Amino acid sequence: MDILQEIAENLNRVKTKRPLVHHITNYVTVNDCANIVLAIGASPVMADDLEEVEEMVGFAGALVVNIGTLNARTIESMSKAGVKAKTLGIPVVLDPVGVGATALRTKTAQDFIAKVRPDVIRGNMSEIKVLSGVHVGIKGVDSIADTQDAAAVAIELSRRFECVIAITGKTDIIAYKNQLCTICNGHEKLSQVTGTGCMSTSLVGAYCGANDDCFVAATAGIVTMGLAGEIAYRSLRSDDGIGTFKVRLFDAISNMAAETLLKGGRVSYEQTKN
Amino acid sequence: MDILQEIAENLNRVKTKRPLVHHITNYVTVNDCANIVLAIGASPVMADDLEEVEEMVGFAGALVVNIGTLNARTIESMSKAGVKAKTLGIPVVLDPVGVGATALRTKTAQDFIAKVRPDVIRGNMSEIKVLSGVHVGIKGVDSIADTQDAAAVAIELSRRFECVIAITGKTDIIAYKNQLCTICNGHEKLSQVTGTGCMSTSLVGAYCGANDDCFVAATAGIVTMGLAGEIAYRSLRSDDGIGTFKVRLFDAISNMAAETLLKGGRVSYEQTKN
Amino acid sequence: MDILQEIAENLNRVKTKRPLVHHITNYVTVNDCANIVLAIGASPVMADDLEEVEEMVGFAGALVVNIGTLNARTIESMSKAGVKAKTLGIPVVLDPVGVGATALRTKTAQDFIAKVRPDVIRGNMSEIKVLSGVHVGIKGVDSIADTQDAAAVAIELSRRFECVIAITGKTDIIAYKNQLCTICNGHEKLSQVTGTGCMSTSLVGAYCGANDDCFVAATAGIVTMGLAGEIAYRSLRSDDGIGTFKVRLFDAISNMAAETLLKGGRVSYEQTKN
Repeated sequence: MDILQEIAENLNRVKTKRPLVHHITNYVTVNDCANIVLAIGASPVMADDLEEVEEMVGFAGALVVNIGTLNARTIESMSKAGVKAKTLGIPVVLDPVGVGATALRTKTAQDFIAKVRPDVIRGNMSEIKVLSGVHVGIKGVDSIADTQDAAAVAIELSRRFECVIAITGKTDIIAYKNQLCTICNGHEKLSQVTGTGCMSTSLVGAYCGANDDCFVAATAGIVTMGLAGEIAYRSLRSDDGIGTFKVRLFDAISNMAAETLLKGGRVSYEQTKN
Repeated sequence: MDILQEIAENLNRVKTKRPLVHHITNYVTVNDCANIVLAIGASPVMADDLEEVEEMVGFAGALVVNIGTLNARTIESMSKAGVKAKTLGIPVVLDPVGVGATALRTKTAQDFIAKVRPDVIRGNMSEIKVLSGVHVGIKGVDSIADTQDAAAVAIELSRRFECVIAITGKTDIIAYKNQLCTICNGHEKLSQVTGTGCMSTSLVGAYCGANDDCFVAATAGIVTMGLAGEIAYRSLRSDDGIGTFKVRLFDAISNMAAETLLKGGRVSYEQTKN
Repeated sequence: MDILQEIAENLNRVKTKRPLVHHITNYVTVNDCANIVLAIGASPVMADDLEEVEEMVGFAGALVVNIGTLNARTIESMSKAGVKAKTLGIPVVLDPVGVGATALRTKTAQDFIAKVRPDVIRGNMSEIKVLSGVHVGIKGVDSIADTQDAAAVAIELSRRFECVIAITGKTDIIAYKNQLCTICNGHEKLSQVTGTGCMSTSLVGAYCGANDDCFVAATAGIVTMGLAGEIAYRSLRSDDGIGTFKVRLFDAISNMAAETLLKGGRVSYEQTKN
């Protein structure tokens, strides 16, 4: 598979189909998630009242559930919307923000996964490890051993949950059963802006809403964010800081074209044995 | 009536009186709504707890109600604040975000209108048509026929609800009974930033809070947003994108002066027969 | 005490320790609060569900409670998290947004202070006066008399509540019992961006999370914001407005270094008699 070519075509389909991406998400980064979805060419809608989420998700190309500021009311809405989406064949993307930090987050994520069976889960290494229950020793996050660990954890969890697992970090890992993508795009400045993880998940939602293969779509979302971070960083002058970086990040997403991805994407694709 | 002169005077009164604009609004665009109100020279306050909304609206020059992320709790607060505002003679502006998409939104907007009788309703063509119950065939949004339709729908609804109806789109229509303003300001980039509709409504709230005539005030709010979009667009360089556009939009609002409106506003005013 | 030297060392400890700052805050400015905490080098987390706040605050270096959009649900969470934080010896910073405007806000702030006994309270002159119950005649806010008033009010309240009182305005006053800092940094443009008060409080939280002395930490937070406002303003070109100013404010915070504070901070420290 020519993964970059696939990703580029995925982007073109987002821009052509302009899928509606229904979010039940946190109030910290919700504005950025809405704007990133618009910037890539899709259409966001945020709605979380129990009485309307089933109706709203019926219009959507994808559902994004993010537990960043979960509460009793929205947890119920997430579950209801998730079940409805799956009934309708609409892809569901879960961002288990902070899972492991509190019992409520862990229980909510586990219950959601068991009940809804999301199509994609995107988190950082720590969050995915919590979901996997695999206790891997804490090492330098970017060591080669860790990238191998991440791939192993992602593949195992993908098989167990029958969903795409996306782990973002210095190197990003996307796994679906025996398929694996490793992404080397990105810039450390991305970790200095709140919500770049949430925004990556929203991009994955936008790509899933316009494309059939959630594995490629998830990879496309993560590559897009990483590459935009690089482009944003390169545009900075010496006295620019994190405010300007964030503005340029949105510029880069809104200017992202198939050719940009083909030229700048650094993705390797492999199929693992058995 | 020299409508541009009226609008320019409306702006000066906003800057002089600095009215407090009480919002009960969605959590997606709330920060932008607060900043746009500050940028035009008024003062925002957001408060939505049932126990305090009546007290808070008592300090306000205008109340803005936006149902973008409504829920059972805030729906009740909207109603309570709206009734109190009308009792006190404070103008009420409604943004029926997404009305028609779900039964909850439609019922909430209809109930609010029936109970509170807002002074201004601002929405896009689709939202206003849902409120009007007029089933007009779906055509190209920007055809001349559609602008005529929009005017007819707006005038009819304005008479029925006895309030100002503002329909924003490529051409904006503001109607109050037999008075009609048609606005040709704006730029398509405005539709690529989330919340420019909400922000327009907040600007209308700011103008209503400082001026007696809500028809002129609503027109002023919509012209201000459209013209700011044009100014923001003109400032862009080739590799700027939507992030920079949004920053410049706030720049343009905060730099907006009476002369800018007199020079750049493209508004026609007419009185319709009977 | 060489207060500027202390402040500079406080900043270095924030950057070294990167404390987690748990916020229970309003949905208007929450994204900016998260980004300002990241920009100064600390780490934000927002969580407000009753079921998880005690667990979450256990990981935190400081707790920031901001009542800007309080509601029945979050008021309970604020109290629970606050009590837990104090039990664990974690500093608590209160921003009593809009106290005095409604009975709910006044009661919430008073109850929180009585029950939790926060380490720092940051507000504007009007908010602090409401808390103090001292009815001082309304005068020009920036008169010398008023600065003296502010210091007197702050010192009295600090003794009564046994906490640091920070009053922000044209001149900022930080008081702790018989210690007083007066800060002359800042720019009026800061009052034209929503949430600069909230962000100042979040910065105070970040400094308190990495340093033992909350009086110096609070001073450091307020100086940092004021100086960043000056730097942001100086960078503006003639047609820039409030959008660009806000971007540059985040740039300035993220570029803030010990030397910047030593060079640009304008703080006087004094110990009052008895």
